[in-house]
Amino acid sequence: MLHLPIYIELGAVIAGSLSGALHGIRKGADPIGVLGIAVATGLGGGVLRDLFIGQGPPSALLDSRYLMTASAASVAALFFGASAVRWERVLTAVDAILLGLWVVIGLEKALLFQLPIAPAIFLGVITAVGGGLLRDILAGDRPSFAVPGELYVTPALVAALLYAALVVWWSIHPLIAEAAAVGVGALLRLLAIYRHWRLPPATQMPRWRR
Amino acid sequence: MLHLPIYIELGAVIAGSLSGALHGIRKGADPIGVLGIAVATGLGGGVLRDLFIGQGPPSALLDSRYLMTASAASVAALFFGASAVRWERVLTAVDAILLGLWVVIGLEKALLFQLPIAPAIFLGVITAVGGGLLRDILAGDRPSFAVPGELYVTPALVAALLYAALVVWWSIHPLIAEAAAVGVGALLRLLAIYRHWRLPPATQMPRWRR
Amino acid sequence: MLHLPIYIELGAVIAGSLSGALHGIRKGADPIGVLGIAVATGLGGGVLRDLFIGQGPPSALLDSRYLMTASAASVAALFFGASAVRWERVLTAVDAILLGLWVVIGLEKALLFQLPIAPAIFLGVITAVGGGLLRDILAGDRPSFAVPGELYVTPALVAALLYAALVVWWSIHPLIAEAAAVGVGALLRLLAIYRHWRLPPATQMPRWRR
Repeated sequence: MLHLPIYIELGAVIAGSLSGALHGIRKGADPIGVLGIAVATGLGGGVLRDLFIGQGPPSALLDSRYLMTASAASVAALFFGASAVRWERVLTAVDAILLGLWVVIGLEKALLFQLPIAPAIFLGVITAVGGGLLRDILAGDRPSFAVPGELYVTPALVAALLYAALVVWWSIHPLIAEAAAVGVGALLRLLAIYRHWRLPPATQMPRWRR
Repeated sequence: MLHLPIYIELGAVIAGSLSGALHGIRKGADPIGVLGIAVATGLGGGVLRDLFIGQGPPSALLDSRYLMTASAASVAALFFGASAVRWERVLTAVDAILLGLWVVIGLEKALLFQLPIAPAIFLGVITAVGGGLLRDILAGDRPSFAVPGELYVTPALVAALLYAALVVWWSIHPLIAEAAAVGVGALLRLLAIYRHWRLPPATQMPRWRR
Repeated sequence: MLHLPIYIELGAVIAGSLSGALHGIRKGADPIGVLGIAVATGLGGGVLRDLFIGQGPPSALLDSRYLMTASAASVAALFFGASAVRWERVLTAVDAILLGLWVVIGLEKALLFQLPIAPAIFLGVITAVGGGLLRDILAGDRPSFAVPGELYVTPALVAALLYAALVVWWSIHPLIAEAAAVGVGALLRLLAIYRHWRLPPATQMPRWRR
């Protein structure tokens, strides 16, 4: 079981909230709307996971630091203004590196609460991509996971399946599985971004072409 | 209390997931997006119901077979390709027949957890139509229940009210109420589809016409 | 801790459900769609709050009167027809007055369940604005909180911060804090409506203008 110092988790919340804030700003939201979208992006994945686990309030609501960190990131994005956009490339890279980490955190929390492996894989993926999904719904966009684009859910799913295969089926030491899942998730996501890897719409797959 | 063998419930999950997958394919989602939309459609109603009941994780996350069944249905839709569309008429009919079944399952589960009758009716309807609602939100469509169309929520609501009237107010044996609710729900939904029954927008009702 | 007679809370549910019903009617929903949107608007804020608190079913599902009140308000809006639109100005004013009340109810419930202050502020705001957010999602609109408009989330947030400052940091008697939060929330919201106060899009703030 991965025990991360909370500062790493709060760092990941900063990255998610900043990218949510920039998204909200670009969509024309006002500052309070930006705050809402940033908080949902930074904390949404973990909150959705904990609502599904259903054992009391989400951990992001049990400690004031989560909401304060997400709010501060949003205020920083508003304050630094147009120059904040320059961070965006860095943010995307940081987000990519964190993708597999969120998967592992979510998956292990699900296993800790005695959920079977398929739901644990599902909750690992939700933890990683749920924030982006909530961001799209709150900003009124078509959820990006329903639109073909640079692979995002796929690296999370591969990382989750890899972790499950290593730990649950092959009984490899969790530390190795964690490192492998985080590494493979980040690698796939970074390659997807920089090489513009994307899945085609299902209708363009051979059996769907008429 | 209705005790269904899990195979019937998994069969219903297959029907819902297949129709969700075809919807996602038609909307231009990529294969992983199709998988997400299919899972949400097949499992969403029961998951929403269980989140509202608030007693631990949704039952669809307590047994790996639910997620595996929904995923397999999605893969099948992708694999069979354009010929899968031929199933769509059959699927719609199967979905119609299952509508009242989901209502009864949801309503009885709510009663089992000691909820009063109005919330139980609400949760019966949510179980039946929640998957379609999540499908629309995830696919970025205007939720179909906000758009006049062939009656869908209405047969579910009628089935729920009928069950509640028979069992709670008139103390008729549950087995008869279950059969009546499933039958009336399916009949109304099938008639709505084949006779194109739809409610007019509220603005076209006499008191709203100017 | 604020103990309101349930009749006040049900009155607030009527106001929310009526405004939701009129929104659904204007958007072209059919009568059953209007019912769904009205119920979500009237009960959604409290239900979201209780899902986050995660201690059993939302209080709106523990007592049939909530759903029956919301449904009756929806039927009334449909029945009175076009003349119902005349209520809309009154409804907006009533809603404004209730804004701070919902904040206080949500915030105090969160504190009662031992949540820290930042999550309690968050849940106070969610209780006040969650119904409108669900209404927009169900009606297929871009959530209004992501679109600059007359201040709505802002008065709720100010009321929540004021209450927290008075009670938690300055230990002022809850009754005074409650009155102050409700009063300031209503005043800000009413001024925002009648003087057309709105925040600019973040991109029009000095540091974002290019």
